[in-house]
Amino acid sequence: AQNILSCIFCKIVTGEAPSFKVYETKYSLAFLAKPPVSHGHTLIIPKYHSRTLTDPGLPDEFLADVGPIMKKIAVMNGEDSYNVIQNNGRTAGQSVDHVHFHVVTKPVNQPNQGLVLTPQSWPSYPTTDEEYAQDADKMKQIGRSHGFPGVSA
Amino acid sequence: AQNILSCIFCKIVTGEAPSFKVYETKYSLAFLAKPPVSHGHTLIIPKYHSRTLTDPGLPDEFLADVGPIMKKIAVMNGEDSYNVIQNNGRTAGQSVDHVHFHVVTKPVNQPNQGLVLTPQSWPSYPTTDEEYAQDADKMKQIGRSHGFPGVSA
Repeated sequence: AQNILSCIFCKIVTGEAPSFKVYETKYSLAFLAKPPVSHGHTLIIPKYHSRTLTDPGLPDEFLADVGPIMKKIAVMNGEDSYNVIQNNGRTAGQSVDHVHFHVVTKPVNQPNQGLVLTPQSWPSYPTTDEEYAQDADKMKQIGRSHGFPGVSA
Repeated sequence: AQNILSCIFCKIVTGEAPSFKVYETKYSLAFLAKPPVSHGHTLIIPKYHSRTLTDPGLPDEFLADVGPIMKKIAVMNGEDSYNVIQNNGRTAGQSVDHVHFHVVTKPVNQPNQGLVLTPQSWPSYPTTDEEYAQDADKMKQIGRSHGFPGVSA
């Protein structure tokens, strides 16, 4: 799963495909998105081929490495407002089948640049306290069945 | 910066405010979003008060902890499609001033549930190769000025 010949992001990792790299560690690579939705739009990718976070799944060391890089890219972008977004599956808007975290600047006074979220982007899903409890219980049950260590009581 | 009395998410961390917790570590807490945009919508927060990733800024150990939890929550949600999104600043859609990562299920055949992204959500920002190079150079210069270790050459 480490490298897929047909994957454009794997080719960027190996250098076979060109990119404007800005940051790199043993586990991750960050480069400018093409096309960007705003200046400095950057993708952070694990140097490990997985379609989504869960399919087939990224080892924790790759996931842990990404967090501190998000912050560094935001600092390097120099904007006060920005979004971090990572999409899994076509239904969720994923277009390249290799996990990537977008760090997207949201320049003030440029509402048509950056990720455009509206109130319609966040629909409300009416939920009763009983349903919250059921949802939480179901999730925790699955977490325990996977042996995850930090599942809440 | 560790706890802010007026912050609702800090109160959830201490237990002063109620929540439906699903996952917890030394550094992070995950609980159901209220209201959710789809079933199982979860927020992962660092147990450290920072408005955004960069203001005043989260220590790396908190950021590193979040990555593996994103994957666990997605597994616990049991949906193939989902988004992870983290908003910084009002302009970028942030409403609670304590860093939080949304893990949002995107149930297939329920296009009005979950994070609703459209082609309009991703505007194109026309950019020439020269501008990409300038953007990358500017970012790398800032990264070097902060002493970040992995800035690309």
